Formats: sequence, C-alpha cells, structure tokens
Amino acid sequence: MIRLYYAAHTCALASHIALEEAGAEYSAVRISFADEEQRKPEYLAINPKGRVPAMVTEQGILTETPATLVFIAQSFPQARLAPLEDPFRFAEVQAFNSYLCSTVHVAHAHRVRGYRWATDEASFADMKRKVPQTVGAGFALIERGMLRGPWVLGETYTICDPYLFTLAQWLEGDGVDLSTLPRVMGHRARMAERPAVRKALAEELN
Amino acid sequence: MIRLYYAAHTCALASHIALEEAGAEYSAVRISFADEEQRKPEYLAINPKGRVPAMVTEQGILTETPATLVFIAQSFPQARLAPLEDPFRFAEVQAFNSYLCSTVHVAHAHRVRGYRWATDEASFADMKRKVPQTVGAGFALIERGMLRGPWVLGETYTICDPYLFTLAQWLEGDGVDLSTLPRVMGHRARMAERPAVRKALAEELN
Repeated sequence: MIRLYYAAHTCALASHIALEEAGAEYSAVRISFADEEQRKPEYLAINPKGRVPAMVTEQGILTETPATLVFIAQSFPQARLAPLEDPFRFAEVQAFNSYLCSTVHVAHAHRVRGYRWATDEASFADMKRKVPQTVGAGFALIERGMLRGPWVLGETYTICDPYLFTLAQWLEGDGVDLSTLPRVMGHRARMAERPAVRKALAEELN
Repeated sequence: MIRLYYAAHTCALASHIALEEAGAEYSAVRISFADEEQRKPEYLAINPKGRVPAMVTEQGILTETPATLVFIAQSFPQARLAPLEDPFRFAEVQAFNSYLCSTVHVAHAHRVRGYRWATDEASFADMKRKVPQTVGAGFALIERGMLRGPWVLGETYTICDPYLFTLAQWLEGDGVDLSTLPRVMGHRARMAERPAVRKALAEELN
C-alpha cells in the first residue's frame, strides 16, 4: 500500500488527488510545517530534501511531484491518467508538469521562501513584490494555450489537471488578477466539483 | 527528423547528448542568447517561453528538458536510455531529472538571472552571493546518494546522466568547491569520454 506524506496547502495535494482518481489503496500522513516536522530526523530519513510530497511505495520512496504523478498513472493504468501508449502525448504531460514545478511553483516560492536563494530581508521583500507579476506571467502562458480545455491536454483528464489545480489554489495569495485568467478559473471550478478533489481537500484541510 | 534548438552553455546540451546516444537523425539549430534571438518573434513562434531547449518533432513541438529526454528515450527504445518497462525505476528517472530542473538549475539561475524574480540590483548581488551555497547543497545531496555510480541510477546509463553532466559543467562558474564532490566529478570525467558527449560538445562550442 502506498503512503503519501503531505503538508496542507502544498503541492503534495496533486499527488493526493491523483491517488484518489486512480482508486489506489493508500494512506495520507500529514507533516506539520508549522512544527518544522519536515526538518526532523524522522522525516529526513524518508526524504533527505526535507520537502513534500514523499511517497512510500512497495519498491521504495519517490519524491518530486512530476515523478509521483507519473508513478501513479503507470501503476494504475486502468484509471487512464496519462496517454501511456503515445510517446509524444506522454512527453507533453511531462512538459506541462515540468513547467509547473520548475517555473510556476518556483515563482510562487519567492513569496515566502526567499531565504532559499538570498540572505537579506530587503531581497525577500523585493522578491515578494514581484510574485504577482512572475506567477501571473506563468499562468498567462497557461491561459493562452497550454490549457487546451476543458482539461489541460484537451478532452482527456490527466495527471496534469490535479497539478494545475493545486498551483491555482495559490493565485489569490500570490496577488494575481484572477479576471485575466478565465480559462484557468473555469478549470479550477471544474476540478473542485470532482469527488476525488473534494475527498483529498476534505482530508487535508480538516 | 527531429530539430533541436539550443544555445551554448545551456541545459539544452542534455537533450543534444541524448539524441546522439540514441542514434537519432536530428539537426541542431543554435540560438544566440547574446543576440537575444530567444526573444525574437521567429523563435517565440516555436517556443513562447523564450527558452531552450525546444524540440521540433514530427508530431509537434516539445519543451522542458525532462520532457524532451523522456521523448528521446521512448522514441528510440533500442538505445535503452530509460527503464521503460519498470514504473518505479522510470519514476526514479523522473524524480532525479525533476530535482535537477526545479532545484539545482533554479539555484544556478540566481547567479545571473536574478531579474526573473526580483527588481533591485542589491537583490541580484545578494542572490549571486548565495549561489555557491545553494548549488553546492543541491550537488551535495547528489554526491551523498542520488548518484549511485558509476551512472546516476547505478550500472545502467540513462537520460539522467547527460542532464547531470550538463549541470555539472556550471560548477566552477557557480563557485562550488569541487573537492567536496569527488563522485560527481568522477561522473563528469566518465561522461566527457563518451563519443556522444564529445560530438555534442564539439558542435555546440565550435
């Protein structure tokens, strides 16, 4: 059985939703960032990076959302969460998720985790001021074409969708003008109605 | 035939090497960052992100190194560049490459591209000062276990190897103490001897 380590309001939500969508047997274990549990030896033994998600599988431990999502899609092929039989379409899934993790999530992280990349308080404030613009630019590209609609890849729901939904949860906090993103917001609303999303959110935010 | 758009000294080298390793028929097209060709309409029509690599395939255009690498591995299975038949091992490939793109490459980018996330010159200088530490921390995790040796995943060469080699090219410029990374440097030396690596480097740096 899969064990997913998550913290509330983090990108681990994407994997949590995907496990629900896949009909997987799994347990979700909450880590408290407020208590800095992600930096304690018990958790670092699971994920030396001190981040979430970490997914304990029967074969070993996986980290990094694009990897946990692909593992879920390939381990539960009957759920059809990725175009596994088509290398180009499958690479499109990876391209989208890679953009989310390396550009959009990174832009967001500069709002409250500037200490990762700088030292001075003035730099943190400077980074924080730019977040509406940088996260907004990332989502503008998604709005203008990467999100094909109704789902990210078009008619078929894939592991891109819970990941986009997860990062779109942060738009208000990041100060992005939602009125510029009608298609992204439509996607967010469609996602919020899915039973798998409701269940994962209810568990994480209770 | 595949067409790879690259710029010298960028992460596009990883895809270039992988195409060589795969024995693919491809052409490599150089973009000059010095001339800001990546921001010109001709190139933005290929990759609206204004980044490299971009890979034009018969089915469409792909961006993001973890995606182009997976596409190469899946399109040329006889080259055995990824454990395609094993979902867990395949996810390990994705986890490693995702770590490189979202953590290690991002840390490196703060040295000369601080303008992506901040506005003030003082912030850029602050970010730049921290790069030896942040890139060093990323490579320290790789040194301590993610790089199993002799190749990233162990005995089998995969698409993780050209990507690690590519980012390891930047260590000196990033001010990381190479003496702390004997296993990473050993990997870099092994990679530099491979014909595919020599050929890609010769083409990019001529």
